[in-house]
Amino acid sequence: MARSGIEKITVIGGGSSYTPELIDGFIQNEENLQVGEIALYDIDEERLNIVGGMAQRMVRYAEMDTKVTLNLDRPKAIDGAKFVLSSMRVGKMQARILDEKIPLKYNVIGQETTGPGGTFKAFRTIPVTLDIARDMEKYAPDAWYINFTNPSGIMTEALLKHTNLNVVGLCNNPINTIAAMAEVFHVEPKDVFLEWMGLNHVNWVRRVYIKGKDMTQVLMDRLEEFVDIEEMPQFDPELVRTLGVFPTYYLQYYYYHSLRLEEAKAAEKSRGEVVLEVEKELLKKYADPNVLVKPEELSQRGGARYSEAAVNLILSLKLDRRDVQIVVTRNGNSIADLPEDASVEVPCVVGAHGVTPLVMGHFPESIRSLGQQAKAWESATVKAAISGSRKDAILAMLQNPLIPDFPTAVALTDEMMEAHKEYLPQFYK
Amino acid sequence: MARSGIEKITVIGGGSSYTPELIDGFIQNEENLQVGEIALYDIDEERLNIVGGMAQRMVRYAEMDTKVTLNLDRPKAIDGAKFVLSSMRVGKMQARILDEKIPLKYNVIGQETTGPGGTFKAFRTIPVTLDIARDMEKYAPDAWYINFTNPSGIMTEALLKHTNLNVVGLCNNPINTIAAMAEVFHVEPKDVFLEWMGLNHVNWVRRVYIKGKDMTQVLMDRLEEFVDIEEMPQFDPELVRTLGVFPTYYLQYYYYHSLRLEEAKAAEKSRGEVVLEVEKELLKKYADPNVLVKPEELSQRGGARYSEAAVNLILSLKLDRRDVQIVVTRNGNSIADLPEDASVEVPCVVGAHGVTPLVMGHFPESIRSLGQQAKAWESATVKAAISGSRKDAILAMLQNPLIPDFPTAVALTDEMMEAHKEYLPQFYK
Amino acid sequence: MARSGIEKITVIGGGSSYTPELIDGFIQNEENLQVGEIALYDIDEERLNIVGGMAQRMVRYAEMDTKVTLNLDRPKAIDGAKFVLSSMRVGKMQARILDEKIPLKYNVIGQETTGPGGTFKAFRTIPVTLDIARDMEKYAPDAWYINFTNPSGIMTEALLKHTNLNVVGLCNNPINTIAAMAEVFHVEPKDVFLEWMGLNHVNWVRRVYIKGKDMTQVLMDRLEEFVDIEEMPQFDPELVRTLGVFPTYYLQYYYYHSLRLEEAKAAEKSRGEVVLEVEKELLKKYADPNVLVKPEELSQRGGARYSEAAVNLILSLKLDRRDVQIVVTRNGNSIADLPEDASVEVPCVVGAHGVTPLVMGHFPESIRSLGQQAKAWESATVKAAISGSRKDAILAMLQNPLIPDFPTAVALTDEMMEAHKEYLPQFYK
Amino acid sequence: MARSGIEKITVIGGGSSYTPELIDGFIQNEENLQVGEIALYDIDEERLNIVGGMAQRMVRYAEMDTKVTLNLDRPKAIDGAKFVLSSMRVGKMQARILDEKIPLKYNVIGQETTGPGGTFKAFRTIPVTLDIARDMEKYAPDAWYINFTNPSGIMTEALLKHTNLNVVGLCNNPINTIAAMAEVFHVEPKDVFLEWMGLNHVNWVRRVYIKGKDMTQVLMDRLEEFVDIEEMPQFDPELVRTLGVFPTYYLQYYYYHSLRLEEAKAAEKSRGEVVLEVEKELLKKYADPNVLVKPEELSQRGGARYSEAAVNLILSLKLDRRDVQIVVTRNGNSIADLPEDASVEVPCVVGAHGVTPLVMGHFPESIRSLGQQAKAWESATVKAAISGSRKDAILAMLQNPLIPDFPTAVALTDEMMEAHKEYLPQFYK
Repeated sequence: MARSGIEKITVIGGGSSYTPELIDGFIQNEENLQVGEIALYDIDEERLNIVGGMAQRMVRYAEMDTKVTLNLDRPKAIDGAKFVLSSMRVGKMQARILDEKIPLKYNVIGQETTGPGGTFKAFRTIPVTLDIARDMEKYAPDAWYINFTNPSGIMTEALLKHTNLNVVGLCNNPINTIAAMAEVFHVEPKDVFLEWMGLNHVNWVRRVYIKGKDMTQVLMDRLEEFVDIEEMPQFDPELVRTLGVFPTYYLQYYYYHSLRLEEAKAAEKSRGEVVLEVEKELLKKYADPNVLVKPEELSQRGGARYSEAAVNLILSLKLDRRDVQIVVTRNGNSIADLPEDASVEVPCVVGAHGVTPLVMGHFPESIRSLGQQAKAWESATVKAAISGSRKDAILAMLQNPLIPDFPTAVALTDEMMEAHKEYLPQFYK
Repeated sequence: MARSGIEKITVIGGGSSYTPELIDGFIQNEENLQVGEIALYDIDEERLNIVGGMAQRMVRYAEMDTKVTLNLDRPKAIDGAKFVLSSMRVGKMQARILDEKIPLKYNVIGQETTGPGGTFKAFRTIPVTLDIARDMEKYAPDAWYINFTNPSGIMTEALLKHTNLNVVGLCNNPINTIAAMAEVFHVEPKDVFLEWMGLNHVNWVRRVYIKGKDMTQVLMDRLEEFVDIEEMPQFDPELVRTLGVFPTYYLQYYYYHSLRLEEAKAAEKSRGEVVLEVEKELLKKYADPNVLVKPEELSQRGGARYSEAAVNLILSLKLDRRDVQIVVTRNGNSIADLPEDASVEVPCVVGAHGVTPLVMGHFPESIRSLGQQAKAWESATVKAAISGSRKDAILAMLQNPLIPDFPTAVALTDEMMEAHKEYLPQFYK
Repeated sequence: MARSGIEKITVIGGGSSYTPELIDGFIQNEENLQVGEIALYDIDEERLNIVGGMAQRMVRYAEMDTKVTLNLDRPKAIDGAKFVLSSMRVGKMQARILDEKIPLKYNVIGQETTGPGGTFKAFRTIPVTLDIARDMEKYAPDAWYINFTNPSGIMTEALLKHTNLNVVGLCNNPINTIAAMAEVFHVEPKDVFLEWMGLNHVNWVRRVYIKGKDMTQVLMDRLEEFVDIEEMPQFDPELVRTLGVFPTYYLQYYYYHSLRLEEAKAAEKSRGEVVLEVEKELLKKYADPNVLVKPEELSQRGGARYSEAAVNLILSLKLDRRDVQIVVTRNGNSIADLPEDASVEVPCVVGAHGVTPLVMGHFPESIRSLGQQAKAWESATVKAAISGSRKDAILAMLQNPLIPDFPTAVALTDEMMEAHKEYLPQFYK
Repeated sequence: MARSGIEKITVIGGGSSYTPELIDGFIQNEENLQVGEIALYDIDEERLNIVGGMAQRMVRYAEMDTKVTLNLDRPKAIDGAKFVLSSMRVGKMQARILDEKIPLKYNVIGQETTGPGGTFKAFRTIPVTLDIARDMEKYAPDAWYINFTNPSGIMTEALLKHTNLNVVGLCNNPINTIAAMAEVFHVEPKDVFLEWMGLNHVNWVRRVYIKGKDMTQVLMDRLEEFVDIEEMPQFDPELVRTLGVFPTYYLQYYYYHSLRLEEAKAAEKSRGEVVLEVEKELLKKYADPNVLVKPEELSQRGGARYSEAAVNLILSLKLDRRDVQIVVTRNGNSIADLPEDASVEVPCVVGAHGVTPLVMGHFPESIRSLGQQAKAWESATVKAAISGSRKDAILAMLQNPLIPDFPTAVALTDEMMEAHKEYLPQFYK
């Protein structure tokens, strides 16, 4: 077994089509990580065997000492873990497709992180997540819970408010934006420093420093030159110049709701349906015993640089690097306009002591109320997911920035509740 | 001249069809007020003569010593005033009709106080208001500026932030709600005490006390019984019970936007067009030298109990009554979730020393983000009205709770800007 | 029995020499109060009989229908009360004398409200007070607990934080200051409006309005003229002009600690010893069956206008007067620089709905840190009184503004703890 | 000239006996710094020549390309600098001796950073500092002003509030405490992570992490074992366990005022007098052309690791290292209980973009009021130093935690003002 490395990492949702991406990240960083055991846990035995088998072949092919175990027994999977990575989908892709399709009837985009889809994905996932947390409190109380599961800001807030675990939420949006900025300015990602403030997926870049030089205004003036760079197109020049800050990717669903809605209505397939097909192809590959490395097609699945973000985070927590990473954590007083116990996504110092946010201060006035509104929605969603009260669920829905009014909130809540009934026991006590 | 009474009250917009209502209020309270001079000021000489003549006849018929003067010269009208009451409409009813009609093309209700109509009414009115304030700083620096002009919360915030005057904003919504509550519980209005919190027209009643007894839950449980009482129907039972507080009248435009939009689109005439006709009839009456008292038809004009609210306010400021009235004032720390320099509408102690808000504390979570969003819109509107920047105007529009997204904000701002061009010199420098 | 009046008022510490003062207040306001029963409760049977007998004679002599009962059984005394007034002294005057004398050895003034004497008086009294509160929660859950017991700010905070009762703290310092101001300006007390901010006994007057006119600067400029007016001398002109606000009576112990310390050391008798003698004389009078009205000597006891303050408060709570009174209540956001759950003494609207503080805003910088420090001491005192931890007791002592350093805090805490051992069971578990 | 290094560093107070310490630091880090020019500026030509000559010999002996220039012309010294280091003493050591001696008459310790000595050192130094800042705004507007001058927290706040420069304050207290912790736990300083919160010299360590492990409780339990380690003795076990956090070195003047006062009164010489003698000896060495390296005796001067702290800071600012250093900066929202525009000493991320504080959150209650009080004193001192108002000076003095009452504040202010008259032109306009 790897000496002085990480004894055990557990992956909740180990049967996810992303897992090989993560395994690949561990392989690339074997020198620093030296993981003793990667415990894959899933409730879907068939997928666990296919994806787990793929993971085992990858590790073997990389000639690593790491043991990859496949687990249907959750306590056993978690017992002794140093890091628990969660990436799951309660109700699977079918539930996502409902999340995306039902709202369209009400002229609202579903959007599984920032829209009503996010509300219901959280309703389905929070109870399961808190069950996992209870296992961790018992079998791995000092481990880090690293949450990838969407909506990551809401999931992280639920864990911060309702468990005693070490929790951090992670998303590839920051690392992708940094990569795009590096491409724009022809520098390395490490040369980019962003004042990134907001919530997961509801986030803005207030200032851009390149090698310590403030390039915010330069970038704002010359945005049209960079529209072809991946991850940059969402920075619509007129919007950026009106706000005075750079909105990030998912804010398109708020700032361009009508356009995104028309596209979604016009689309032949929802995003969930597209992903379903991509996954089928991927699983076929994974099932092929001759495939020994991460297949190219995985990149279509989305989630670029997810494993890079995860490995960076794990390494800083393990090696006490105390570098700055943009992750989801308890606000404290980082963003002055949000509650202290809310989750936020901001630059943090990450070391073996934990995750400490930097002071980001006040939202610029141009974005403050949207940030507050989205956070109100997130916190109300956490509350309703746990209370199981229909009234709380309607209140959460009502506060989502995409919902135009009360009758829409009521009707949409009721229809989605019914559709996801099977996965919402707390509302049907 | 009236001894120990108020030497002079100036009415800005003295040619308003409301003026006889106000005059009637002064007549009813002659004993306490004993006004020396009522100076009516207007820029429309014809209307000033008609309405002013009516006012003079009313006062004479009431056998009061009060002198009613008609003024086209503003400094002269203001000079020496103790109270300046403002109720004006820059661009007149034609502008309101545009405010109400243009937004409908974008599936947004115009609404001259809480919607895009309010944004542009403020853009037209704030510069004129600050001009008046400059006159007051010169000719009546210690006088009270009592603002009735809509949108009253925005106008009051502009005056609080950009003048040194004694300013208070007034609306009949609180006094009407108190009257409705009194009717519900078969008590006198003085027996009603409301925890009223929010902004002008964006307001909720958190608790209802009748003779000091907390009747909040009783009222919430029995709302269906009171739907026929005037001013109560807006308290839709399901909405009220979901929020846990009572939303007041104008919040229907937020909570029921789609319904109000459909009605507005279906309506033969906009509210402005209806009022225009009512006013024509009223002016005919006012022009009739045989009409000596406030005509019955005035009640159709809206604005019930406006003169009662005004007289109450003036009396407490003059007589140092230090009673509790619900008015628009600087927040300070009354509502913990809003900026200190914002205007709010809350219960205040009103005395000769001025207006001191009561601590209302934190918004309940069910309404907090809407309160913050509406205030962000109001403050952004004040800022844009003064800067005259198109970018600021778009930002103000974007933050209005009725606006669905950025392209709508841009298009609507541009079209309304063009339509009101004549009254928006600050944007066309 | 009195119709439509207050059914029952309970006086905790009914054997206090103050009680006849209170009874006299009830007699003067019989018309409005019409109390059915005044239940005097005390643990000292002898004093209860003497003072209670006096009270009964006073009421009979006034030809009132009110029944005065003497109670050694606390639940019975409290059962059915509408108001419970607390004015007690755990450990009696002997304990006060220790509170005043021990600190002198450490060059600290004892002072039973703002100094280490206050810390230990609170330690002795809070447990008893919470016991009483438990009785009230059972036998009179809707009654008002009106606290006169010193240190009133600390007692009120303990009750606000650790009970569900309706609680308000009362002191005669505000009403006395208003009376002094009225005398200065030759007006009635009702013509005075003060911006009074701080804690009980740690309080400043920020602005003085006379008939609504701001006379702050006038008063500050002419302070020397008013030094002979009772309650005014503490307003030392140089101190006032340096601070820019008017410090009230008890702040002399902070601003002039060395002087007060020298006087206390030089004094033949401590204040407690003086009061002990006054009380002996008073009790002799009370025991005399020929004495039918409040004796003149009572005024030497201190506590001028206490009954006036109490009656005012009770009347507004009962009659829903919603007037402004300066009382001790939960801060909420009245003083922006203090915690929300702290007790403060500020102007409040008092009605049948309860007590609502006015927004006082930020402390002027000249007094902010002393206000914060005194509040930290008060809150730490509440915490230690309940935890019974020596460490917490030292921390409370250390934060008192009169304590120069840590060794003093430790030694003083230990010596006073030992001296009051009998009344501090929570620290000797 | 050094390529790709720092073009120019200016040292204000270049004739300081510390300067060779700093030069030694530059020599040890030549590889990374590669300074083109070190411009020493002083108003004392004699000392500048002695110390400057020494510096030139040191650099030459180290075979570096760096040019060391001696400057009496300030604009010339500053022109083109990338870093300006300030370490000066207006009024020289004679003024410090007065700062330390006068307060003893009033039973107050002088203490040039946390006591009345600090108040007057700031009064003398702030005007000169702002003059320098004006030169920098003209001749080196993008340079970093690194303040070593005591009282560093107050100086930094004056610069942050009254200039537009890049400002950071520096002290060796954090780096020394880290070194002591490393010694305690037998690890390297880089393995220590401290939650350090407060102001310069008024600071506490809330938590101690060693290689990421929370050792706070272990250290608290075993403090007696470490009393012999340099910089640790101030952590008096009883005090630490009472507070629940570790107070740092200078807090002894608050927590043990009486003891320090007695010692100071008993001492034959004040600290200033001792240092004066040490300096004389040092200057003799510096004047000796055969001395080519930093003399051993310099360590007696105090200021251990100052040059290490300075070089660390400069390197991170230059090389964009974005590591965590404990420096003095604008609070923003790092410490929730202090004003946003106050200076604080907290862990910060230091990179080429600047200095960003980490969120430290709320003070524990045991230390909050002292932190707030000391900050109130510091901010009042800045205000008075600039206004030149005696009233403001008394207010600043009054708020210092060592001052017992108002008469002491007045007398001490007046006597010190007179004694330092020559260096306080702003108070004698």
